[in-house]
Amino acid sequence: MNDTNSIYDSARVATILLNDIAQLSADTEGVSRPAYSSIETKTLEYLIDYARAQGLDARYDAGQNAVFSLPEDTDADKFVLIGSHVDSVPSGGNFDGLAGVIAGILCLTKAKHQCIRFGKPVKVIALRAEESAWFGPCYIASKALLGKLQNSELSAIHKGDGRQLHAHMADIGINMNRVRLNEPLIDTKAIESYIELHIEQGPLLVEKDIPAAVVSGIRGNIRYRKIRCTGEPGHSGAVPRAYRKDPVLAMADLLSRLDESWLTILQKGEDLVLTCGMVGTDSEKHALTRIPDLVDFSLDFRSQSTTALDAIRDLLKQTMQSVERERRVKFELDAEMYTAPALCDSQMVDGLLASMKKINLKPFTMPSGGGHDAAVFANAGIPSAMIFVRNRNGSHNPKEAMEISDLIVGTDIIFNYLTEMRK
Amino acid sequence: MNDTNSIYDSARVATILLNDIAQLSADTEGVSRPAYSSIETKTLEYLIDYARAQGLDARYDAGQNAVFSLPEDTDADKFVLIGSHVDSVPSGGNFDGLAGVIAGILCLTKAKHQCIRFGKPVKVIALRAEESAWFGPCYIASKALLGKLQNSELSAIHKGDGRQLHAHMADIGINMNRVRLNEPLIDTKAIESYIELHIEQGPLLVEKDIPAAVVSGIRGNIRYRKIRCTGEPGHSGAVPRAYRKDPVLAMADLLSRLDESWLTILQKGEDLVLTCGMVGTDSEKHALTRIPDLVDFSLDFRSQSTTALDAIRDLLKQTMQSVERERRVKFELDAEMYTAPALCDSQMVDGLLASMKKINLKPFTMPSGGGHDAAVFANAGIPSAMIFVRNRNGSHNPKEAMEISDLIVGTDIIFNYLTEMRK
Repeated sequence: MNDTNSIYDSARVATILLNDIAQLSADTEGVSRPAYSSIETKTLEYLIDYARAQGLDARYDAGQNAVFSLPEDTDADKFVLIGSHVDSVPSGGNFDGLAGVIAGILCLTKAKHQCIRFGKPVKVIALRAEESAWFGPCYIASKALLGKLQNSELSAIHKGDGRQLHAHMADIGINMNRVRLNEPLIDTKAIESYIELHIEQGPLLVEKDIPAAVVSGIRGNIRYRKIRCTGEPGHSGAVPRAYRKDPVLAMADLLSRLDESWLTILQKGEDLVLTCGMVGTDSEKHALTRIPDLVDFSLDFRSQSTTALDAIRDLLKQTMQSVERERRVKFELDAEMYTAPALCDSQMVDGLLASMKKINLKPFTMPSGGGHDAAVFANAGIPSAMIFVRNRNGSHNPKEAMEISDLIVGTDIIFNYLTEMRK
Repeated sequence: MNDTNSIYDSARVATILLNDIAQLSADTEGVSRPAYSSIETKTLEYLIDYARAQGLDARYDAGQNAVFSLPEDTDADKFVLIGSHVDSVPSGGNFDGLAGVIAGILCLTKAKHQCIRFGKPVKVIALRAEESAWFGPCYIASKALLGKLQNSELSAIHKGDGRQLHAHMADIGINMNRVRLNEPLIDTKAIESYIELHIEQGPLLVEKDIPAAVVSGIRGNIRYRKIRCTGEPGHSGAVPRAYRKDPVLAMADLLSRLDESWLTILQKGEDLVLTCGMVGTDSEKHALTRIPDLVDFSLDFRSQSTTALDAIRDLLKQTMQSVERERRVKFELDAEMYTAPALCDSQMVDGLLASMKKINLKPFTMPSGGGHDAAVFANAGIPSAMIFVRNRNGSHNPKEAMEISDLIVGTDIIFNYLTEMRK
């Protein structure tokens, strides 16, 4: 299990794969691998080429995701699926998503090179379109794969070209009739369990000086991509305060009240994070000297607790009503996007913790703040688990910083788990 | 003085001129007449053609503004100047600025048609580039005319094409060496006084059911076109509240605190309006699921009192420091734009009030909430005055609504004042 003495140097391979893909998807800052884009496809092609050169089977599935396996496991009736996504947010970091795919491929190639057999057949999936940054909905590829993508989500608009999601999916060759009928694109019964490795997106493992950990559960979320606050335009100098219907001050008031409530909720010991990631007056019409007619903004609430999410939805609507009354503005919410919190499978968690111990790490579990494809698999009834790898500066930004040695620790936890299975 | 019985029907002419110009500068909503644009020039050309057809003298001055007069007054050593601007904000209303120019031209054409002599020579100026919406600085043309345009203002960036103000001014044929040397482009001593008619930009005259009023003074302002709040980007789900440096919540907090202070200031009986007209996260980089790294926003403070403006500047900086400390973000202010409050000339105010009485209106004065070119003339030592015309729905928006009959009342106040001068 000691890579430095083995023929197959996982750290060296991981570095090469990560660097090559960073290069082919480089943006002015960080990387941009848009969901269902040609850059995303190029990333999959690169991985497929590498995997085949290593003697692995590699092919596209009906969702146009790349699936890898040892040649002898290609036609397995049942298999453990290791997965993650290759798309990124705009100008994002290289590790978010991609690290998990590389971890899976490292497990397969290492088994191949060292002639090690897993306890059960194993497949690795490199998913597309996990990030909500491009269309609004998240986990698009895994939802489509499991027949869970809503028809309402299919009409989501791409932030760049304005075309709808279904058109982008059809472009790359997905059979949209099956997706529309919520027909799974894979035999879901064949997936015995799902394991995903991901960089930690918060600061906990850095603070605690732990290279990798097992995830206990995944925060769910309520998201609104566009909340519009409409007031009344007017001259910035000539309308007295009493006559104003200022949407920007109303938006600021709403966010400040939500921020105060957030603090209260945390003080009660409940779990919650809240983010307004996008805000903007209309750049075609706004001016320094005009009270704007409207402002648009997004909101993202996350919690491990379903009841907390329900309470937040109520709080948001109540607070909006108060601000509407007091400031004579109108808030309009676009369609709510909801992902339920997800628990990780306790047997798998135990197995992965045992694997941590086996490679001389102190077993450690933590919740996942970010949502992941694993939540879609878990909520579809497939036993799922996750490994977090220590990472500095969060994710969704080009400064994310994972050490390759920590990725190898995370990969080893999975590799050891796979070899120990049912033995 | 009764237009319906005279040969020259001011209301009919005003309607035609306003409609034609609305048409030639129509945008998808309202009108757009950008400062120093070809649409602005086309507007001046249209007015020059009309004036010449009426037997008036019409020509460009060294600032490329259009100047109109009775032929016999073209070479007058001293004259009363009636002026306003023809540019508009993006998707703005047709009356803001243009109504005052039309009022001046109506005075001249009516005098010409009815062979009425004014007490003194009169010129009318159709100024360009009053609105700050295009470059940031305001009253650009009147400042340039009076040698008051700052060199720092000349490098302001156009919101559309990104080119600097000096380039746009040079393009239309202004001698930029003179502007840079702060050399007036007109013999300022020749301007005996300045009168400007403008639609009211607040709701007072509508509320009080008065068609037009005399302005007592003009609010000054402090403006920041771009205040940047910088925090730290991060994953929206995975960074706990305590670790966040969220620039959007900091901006919301700042605006909410300023809004509260505003209320307190008004309750103390001081004069203030406050507007954030533009706000936005970076549309190239922002995402629903990312704590943004920064947000940009504008602020516009106005007051009739210089001391109140000074106090607000201090309050802003103190509040920013508090928010910076509490939320671990950084605010950066771009260059402050300052316009001092301006008083109207008391003798002119009295004369215009007498004129109101003469045409059977109850004399009425009110402050101007909006800034105007008149403030530049007043602050350059030229006795100045203004007439406000009743107008619904404020200005800087396409719903502004002035009745032509009210414009004619405002025009009559000036016309009567001009004929009564020094008689």
